[in-house]
Amino acid sequence: MKEAKVIFRPEDRAVAVPTRTNLVVAASLAGINIYAPCGDRGVCGKCKVQAWGQLTALTQAERGWLAPAEIEEGWRLACQAVVEGDVVVQLPIGRLQYARIAITETVGLAPNVRKIFLELPQPSLDDQRSDLSRLKEGLGMEETTVHLSVLRNLPRVLQESGYKVTAVLVGEELIAVEKGDTTALNFGLAFDIGTTTVVGMLLDLHSGRQLAVSPALNAQANYGADVVSRIALVMNEPSGLNKLQHEVSKTINGIIGELLQQTGVRRENIYEATIVGNTCMHHLLLGIKPISLAVAPYAPVVTDPLAVKAKELGIDIHPRASVFALPNIAGFVGSDTVGVILATGLHRSEEIKLAIDIGTNGEIVLGNKDRLLACSTAAGPAFEGAHIMNGMRGTEGAIERVWIDDDVKVQVIGRRKPRGICGSGLIDAVAEMYRAGVIDQSGRLINGEEAADRLPKSLSSRLITTTQGPGFVLYSDRHSAVVITQRDIRELQLAKGAIRAGIEILKKELGIEDDQITEVLLAGAFGSYVHPPNVVAIGLIPPLPEERLVSVGNAASVGSRMALLSMAARDIAKDIARRVQYIELSARPDFQEKFVAALSLPSSCVANEIRASV
Amino acid sequence: MKEAKVIFRPEDRAVAVPTRTNLVVAASLAGINIYAPCGDRGVCGKCKVQAWGQLTALTQAERGWLAPAEIEEGWRLACQAVVEGDVVVQLPIGRLQYARIAITETVGLAPNVRKIFLELPQPSLDDQRSDLSRLKEGLGMEETTVHLSVLRNLPRVLQESGYKVTAVLVGEELIAVEKGDTTALNFGLAFDIGTTTVVGMLLDLHSGRQLAVSPALNAQANYGADVVSRIALVMNEPSGLNKLQHEVSKTINGIIGELLQQTGVRRENIYEATIVGNTCMHHLLLGIKPISLAVAPYAPVVTDPLAVKAKELGIDIHPRASVFALPNIAGFVGSDTVGVILATGLHRSEEIKLAIDIGTNGEIVLGNKDRLLACSTAAGPAFEGAHIMNGMRGTEGAIERVWIDDDVKVQVIGRRKPRGICGSGLIDAVAEMYRAGVIDQSGRLINGEEAADRLPKSLSSRLITTTQGPGFVLYSDRHSAVVITQRDIRELQLAKGAIRAGIEILKKELGIEDDQITEVLLAGAFGSYVHPPNVVAIGLIPPLPEERLVSVGNAASVGSRMALLSMAARDIAKDIARRVQYIELSARPDFQEKFVAALSLPSSCVANEIRASV
Repeated sequence: MKEAKVIFRPEDRAVAVPTRTNLVVAASLAGINIYAPCGDRGVCGKCKVQAWGQLTALTQAERGWLAPAEIEEGWRLACQAVVEGDVVVQLPIGRLQYARIAITETVGLAPNVRKIFLELPQPSLDDQRSDLSRLKEGLGMEETTVHLSVLRNLPRVLQESGYKVTAVLVGEELIAVEKGDTTALNFGLAFDIGTTTVVGMLLDLHSGRQLAVSPALNAQANYGADVVSRIALVMNEPSGLNKLQHEVSKTINGIIGELLQQTGVRRENIYEATIVGNTCMHHLLLGIKPISLAVAPYAPVVTDPLAVKAKELGIDIHPRASVFALPNIAGFVGSDTVGVILATGLHRSEEIKLAIDIGTNGEIVLGNKDRLLACSTAAGPAFEGAHIMNGMRGTEGAIERVWIDDDVKVQVIGRRKPRGICGSGLIDAVAEMYRAGVIDQSGRLINGEEAADRLPKSLSSRLITTTQGPGFVLYSDRHSAVVITQRDIRELQLAKGAIRAGIEILKKELGIEDDQITEVLLAGAFGSYVHPPNVVAIGLIPPLPEERLVSVGNAASVGSRMALLSMAARDIAKDIARRVQYIELSARPDFQEKFVAALSLPSSCVANEIRASV
Repeated sequence: MKEAKVIFRPEDRAVAVPTRTNLVVAASLAGINIYAPCGDRGVCGKCKVQAWGQLTALTQAERGWLAPAEIEEGWRLACQAVVEGDVVVQLPIGRLQYARIAITETVGLAPNVRKIFLELPQPSLDDQRSDLSRLKEGLGMEETTVHLSVLRNLPRVLQESGYKVTAVLVGEELIAVEKGDTTALNFGLAFDIGTTTVVGMLLDLHSGRQLAVSPALNAQANYGADVVSRIALVMNEPSGLNKLQHEVSKTINGIIGELLQQTGVRRENIYEATIVGNTCMHHLLLGIKPISLAVAPYAPVVTDPLAVKAKELGIDIHPRASVFALPNIAGFVGSDTVGVILATGLHRSEEIKLAIDIGTNGEIVLGNKDRLLACSTAAGPAFEGAHIMNGMRGTEGAIERVWIDDDVKVQVIGRRKPRGICGSGLIDAVAEMYRAGVIDQSGRLINGEEAADRLPKSLSSRLITTTQGPGFVLYSDRHSAVVITQRDIRELQLAKGAIRAGIEILKKELGIEDDQITEVLLAGAFGSYVHPPNVVAIGLIPPLPEERLVSVGNAASVGSRMALLSMAARDIAKDIARRVQYIELSARPDFQEKFVAALSLPSSCVANEIRASV
């Protein structure tokens, strides 16, 4: 296998990688997580970097995403550009589309799965030890637990291999003995089980390399878009739990099939999977009824880390493989939040940081190595495009960016005609409408009279009345339009108000002021796609300078990956889950007050100040 | 529950027992093992004791087994006599039909199964801990492993019981959480898996009491009487292993059904079973191919102690119950021998003792706490009545005792007409024939001419010629006869010669003389039924005075029971299995020589000397 040297700037971090590695994988080997949400398929255009040196030629996908001037400057899509020799990569520093998460710095490669090749002495009349004693002595592990089926196969495997075998240990359990030396065939999966999306990563546990990523929609969504509707199904239908468990394991198996096909890895060489997810997703995957999450006091069934057999969950990898579920913090702060903290190093930070992971719910963590507080807000699905007149998920045709000056400009996922608007587009739209004076500080759309006085015709003409009341047209053609209604704005205000109120409660509990927050980590799909200054402009987070805002991509899944690669990371995760203090907002009399205060938009001077720094 | 006091003499050991306990059970509570091989059914007549006090009236079975003079003297069958109030029991001291195995002295009651009743605090907004955290804190066990199905049921069980539950732990694993306080319903099974017979005992793990015993024929016998024929089936037929595994689990389930019916205990309250057996039976029950036992170097697949799920073996008790298989020593010295050593305390004896367990194979252990040696001899099935012209197993109609003076007297199991002869009868017959001069020291039946000179007519007339050559008639009527042939005598000589040669090799290896053997422990069905002086008379064991010979009954099954009741006993068993040094006779050039020397009968002076001491 030929190796090449890749240097990542601005840090000048160097790494030796096998040729034929793409730049996303090369970066991960250097401990750098380039955000590449489409799973290396070249369809999202998010993983833009500048790169020079011995790389494969531009692909069709890159030509679609990169302007000729960009190509001139050396821009590539990291997932498409494949190393053929030494390369220098310049990571973008403007919008922070990547997070410098130094996995290899935090934790060494020490997975729970170990494969050990042994050449054992053959039995003789002078050495009548049992096959198992022979094996255990070879391993130097007297107290290993051995799965019965391993014992059943052991004599044949030893015979047929001439006593040259590879032992497969998951934790302290011997789950397989394979003929010959198979130590290089050692793979694992890291999953992030979201309410809407499930992401699976295939990792080589021998080298620590990530081989492939594959996302899929959680098939549970067929039974309800949010956590509450799924719990309701479990409560109301005797077979509800089984259905939902089956749907998510089906989704996971689909992803596994895709990952195997992409890489040629064999199913029986995958010995472990790790999972993170919110507490409800966690319970449903494990076949545990999450009913108690639906009613006060919202106590979950289990928060401890769990190791179960993949088979018990219907996950189709090695027949005796394990699934390790990272610990949850509370009923509405799950192992995905543990993953975010683990990946971003919040638990060992000297400075106080704020992490926000907005999916179907919004989880918020605030603190540093001394104390970490977490809460969850029912942000509602507005950020995922639900309950929004022209709302949609962040897929092709969704408006993802909006600019308003004299006129309205939009950017659409897939560079095609707009079909609707997704969460990041909605935040942009409201922030820009506020800045342009289309809405006032209370969030009210100005009326026609006010508009005629204050706005150019190009904007005032966009104020219309829809079937759902007043609205503002972002885009229209002969056949269709994308409109933001007054109701949509109110939905967004409620959602961002809940999150902001949560942040304020955590600040109060920790006894800090805004300025003490040195960094705001925006995690998840939300964090990756939003334009950070507009998150401040709508008041979702406190008014902080842009340089303190960092998109960390799908940090939860990075946490899952770290736990797969490192036992030390699991210990840390367990410690995090215990240390984080959960704040139940519904139990706080001051929450409603903070919530109401957070509904309005920030005074325009703040918004403008932030805008000035863009 | 009313209690009564039972005193056992000669030791004057006192114990309080619930009324309605029979004397076998009462004795076991006092740490005394009364040999009662028929499982308290009153059909073997072996458990004779003298007893006075408040006991139930004589049963039909007792009237059948006890002579009027014996009844006068207070003799009872311990299994039939049930305590109604205070009782004094005199244990027989003549023939030592019982072994004083002080289980309660050796190991305290500390089973692997623990049931713990908990009244847990209910969740509230001030205490949002998970159900599992709540439970673990109640148990004070942070690191308990929890079976997934327990988690799945946990919310319902907690809800329905008002958070008053009983945790069931097998080792460190939480296998069940039951509603309310069920600590008193805690049962386990101890098995001895023999090639021919399987014995199961039901024990109350809360009190340590043995509730019932049930034996059954091992249904594997349908596929071959001995270990070799069963291994052959596994080698020759693809489904052979599955068939044999199924047969033995079927046998075990049959015994369990019987035990449950006898006692009213519920299947789901049996949380663990222990097993001992020879290495082949052990492997077959676990579904492990014992093929390597059939060919040199006879290395087994596993000797270590194993804990597996009962479900994996098809054993029908609590769905998450465990089966603990005691460790084996070598390919032909199994966990049954470990059980014998554990039960008889050989491993902690200051003095050197010899233990012999003769079933289908003969296992021999010699030594003391400093060093223990073991070997196995292919004794052949002569002692079980196989390959003997009129041989049969020790069931109704078998001649079990023989006396010869002027004429021949026999004692028949079930006190009926003889149908054949079993192992103990055969030993008696040969010893008595030798003493009476019917055979010479080489084992040759004298001819008619010699007989006419030396024997009374009542004996010489019994010398006949059968289809299988010369023979000696023990019994005959118009329809049938029981004859010992020359060939039968040769079979016995080969069998006893092999065992004696094994003993001699172990003696040589240990560097001791006969006189240093302070006790010979005769274990298993063989040890229980034989008339010990005749074991010396035929030279199966070295010439030692009768008082050194002790029948210890089914000591292997006592070992199984000890391991069920006590984790300390398991540690001891593990230590025993490691410490015992296995001597492979087939690898020793001196074995053949010792074997040939052991074929003849001892010089008659020895035989007579022993006889004189009877």
